Amino acid sequence: MKNFLSIKSLSKEDLDHLIVLARKFKNGDIGLYSKKSKHVLKLFLEPSTRTALSFEIACKNLGVNFSILDLEDSSLTKGESILETLKNVHALGFEAAIIRIKEEGILADIADTLDISLINAGEGKIEHPSQALLDAITINDEFKGLNGLKIGIIGDINHSRVASSNVDLLSKFDSEVRVFQPSEFGELNDQKYKPEDVDSIYKNSDVVMVLRNQYERHQNIDVSKDQYLEKYGLNIKRLQNLKKGSIVMHPGPFNRGVEICDEVLTHDKCRFYKQVENGVYARMAILKEVLNG
Amino acid sequence: MKNFLSIKSLSKEDLDHLIVLARKFKNGDIGLYSKKSKHVLKLFLEPSTRTALSFEIACKNLGVNFSILDLEDSSLTKGESILETLKNVHALGFEAAIIRIKEEGILADIADTLDISLINAGEGKIEHPSQALLDAITINDEFKGLNGLKIGIIGDINHSRVASSNVDLLSKFDSEVRVFQPSEFGELNDQKYKPEDVDSIYKNSDVVMVLRNQYERHQNIDVSKDQYLEKYGLNIKRLQNLKKGSIVMHPGPFNRGVEICDEVLTHDKCRFYKQVENGVYARMAILKEVLNG
Amino acid sequence: MKNFLSIKSLSKEDLDHLIVLARKFKNGDIGLYSKKSKHVLKLFLEPSTRTALSFEIACKNLGVNFSILDLEDSSLTKGESILETLKNVHALGFEAAIIRIKEEGILADIADTLDISLINAGEGKIEHPSQALLDAITINDEFKGLNGLKIGIIGDINHSRVASSNVDLLSKFDSEVRVFQPSEFGELNDQKYKPEDVDSIYKNSDVVMVLRNQYERHQNIDVSKDQYLEKYGLNIKRLQNLKKGSIVMHPGPFNRGVEICDEVLTHDKCRFYKQVENGVYARMAILKEVLNG
Repeated sequence: MKNFLSIKSLSKEDLDHLIVLARKFKNGDIGLYSKKSKHVLKLFLEPSTRTALSFEIACKNLGVNFSILDLEDSSLTKGESILETLKNVHALGFEAAIIRIKEEGILADIADTLDISLINAGEGKIEHPSQALLDAITINDEFKGLNGLKIGIIGDINHSRVASSNVDLLSKFDSEVRVFQPSEFGELNDQKYKPEDVDSIYKNSDVVMVLRNQYERHQNIDVSKDQYLEKYGLNIKRLQNLKKGSIVMHPGPFNRGVEICDEVLTHDKCRFYKQVENGVYARMAILKEVLNG
Repeated sequence: MKNFLSIKSLSKEDLDHLIVLARKFKNGDIGLYSKKSKHVLKLFLEPSTRTALSFEIACKNLGVNFSILDLEDSSLTKGESILETLKNVHALGFEAAIIRIKEEGILADIADTLDISLINAGEGKIEHPSQALLDAITINDEFKGLNGLKIGIIGDINHSRVASSNVDLLSKFDSEVRVFQPSEFGELNDQKYKPEDVDSIYKNSDVVMVLRNQYERHQNIDVSKDQYLEKYGLNIKRLQNLKKGSIVMHPGPFNRGVEICDEVLTHDKCRFYKQVENGVYARMAILKEVLNG
Repeated sequence: MKNFLSIKSLSKEDLDHLIVLARKFKNGDIGLYSKKSKHVLKLFLEPSTRTALSFEIACKNLGVNFSILDLEDSSLTKGESILETLKNVHALGFEAAIIRIKEEGILADIADTLDISLINAGEGKIEHPSQALLDAITINDEFKGLNGLKIGIIGDINHSRVASSNVDLLSKFDSEVRVFQPSEFGELNDQKYKPEDVDSIYKNSDVVMVLRNQYERHQNIDVSKDQYLEKYGLNIKRLQNLKKGSIVMHPGPFNRGVEICDEVLTHDKCRFYKQVENGVYARMAILKEVLNG
């Protein structure tokens, strides 16, 4: 696997392989990856805590050197393009670059002209494939598979690369994925999304994924934060009526009292921190495949 | 020791143990701490050179992975609380977080609710326990103990977390600690401080600690920098009249020509760079205790 | 070699030794440098991609700990001088500091008063000795030596520390170095530069070094970017008429369509990425000499 850019370009077998590999890392069945000095670069053009540190820990667990290129300290400030920067980075000896970027489509455009491997760590509103993988690992851990499940995603679908990549991934398996987006956020902008009523999702799903309202990507929203929890959020009432055996997921960071009530965080259905933990193993699996590739 | 938050919560025996441990690291009697991959995170919300690099070197000397979370690159910019960030950081696999923070009291408030270990690397005007430990190591090196000494602290006491933690630490031993704060900085704001005349401190102390005037924490001060050296600073005249066998300490960074004259820096009583060196061993001892759990 | 500050202070033998050492690293004839934990600090006061990452990879390849001091997170923000910061950094256990700085002359002034080794990674408009070394390695690789060559440097000479250090280095060998600076950039400001007609350089040089127009160091320039390629840049016509067996170099980052046309980048005379690659080996050689020193 030269690049890890998109769920769409991976087969069901690729995904199964990555999930199994991540589990081996989690169980400690595989240790340090590499004795030879390998170098990986992080180049993040949007803020991140979980994803950034997760890739860093994954590299260190694998015995891979991890470097950071800060936008403001780099020649990107002198007008150098990201393509040109990556050509130089490869000449320096980096074998892979982990990139988070707001602009959509640029990674796919430049990947083929580059010898360095690219790993997509979040791309605008469309792709967050490593998040989809860690979510799949979390669901797989719980239900011993990704088939035969009802999965519901609720929130700011149009602005969510998490929703987009999750739907891309889960649609490769034999599960039913439904989404709900508040009318205040507009019409669903992609036919891949199958809409369903909000309370039907909360009541009938094996997996409820609640998304973060990405206020920084909106101009203005015609619903107050207080109203949101009542109308659409996972409030106490909905929490008590979740399907038996179901779990709740959220990619973080969450807006407490908006998408979720505080009580969710200590509820036994909550898998938020499991997701974060699985993120490390997911990224170790991705890095191993890409660096072997 | 799960956390290292405050001198107050440590016993004399804890402190003796840390001082002995630091000495072992200094003498090279203990080498790499850990073969298993351990991860420690630095999260500094105020600037630092000495403390930040000191903890970094301490981690690397111990064979512990050291990562940095930059405020501006993190989800803290998306409104995530420090408590929530630390929960996530723990889920990622970090065993300890080294924190510098302006707001007082927050660390003690959140420490108990967290599984991750917290290390206080400077908290507002009240706590800087690792600095107090390195100062104690420096005094102990010199006088073969922390008892029977006259110790004086001079300067901007009210704004100094260094003074506060040092007084907390030294009061556990059988030494006499006196302070002087210029009247322009107001009344001493804590009864733990025993005041003394400035020149009496300079003349009669075994250890003189000169503090940095923290101009960034003042609105305005009614004493010019030139006047300060004459009235309160360690100027040449006072330097020549220091007690025989005494030493001079300063936590750095210093304002030359204000709190101290240039001549101090090359004087044989000066321990400024010894303090910095001991800072690495102090932090190695703290990290080892905290990571051992 | 305690410091690596200036090409001028190195003998021809020093340079030959560094070139041979870099080649050994490139061939894999020397592996990890150090079992003992050595610490090196990067302190860059101007932006950089290639040089910064190159030193970082060089350290990691050598098994040397690499730390970064960010200006804005450090006590430099509290007014601490760079000299004082470096004294502290040495007390912390760092054996060398890699510095990029805008102000000229300061490094030479402070180096002698410091116990820590200093490595110059770019100094104002006058020194970039590690770049000159990697350029020498690139030329040496191509022509099996640095003698008997015609070397031409074209562009913004007065603002170019690359030109300055390259002329200093090459003048120690038996090659002819000529420069061309567009009249819009003013008169050449140093007698060490031997001027020549722009097209004569392009046609007759074994090595053509094209410089980056450093717009950030100019107030205003009386030549548009479009005109520049036509009048002075390496455009297609000039590219086709380069001397047989010659090579083209550029320190990067380049302004495409200004100093160079796009076609240069894929031309077999282009050594831009070879230079970047050689930068890692050059810096490994420098670090090994300085840390041994």
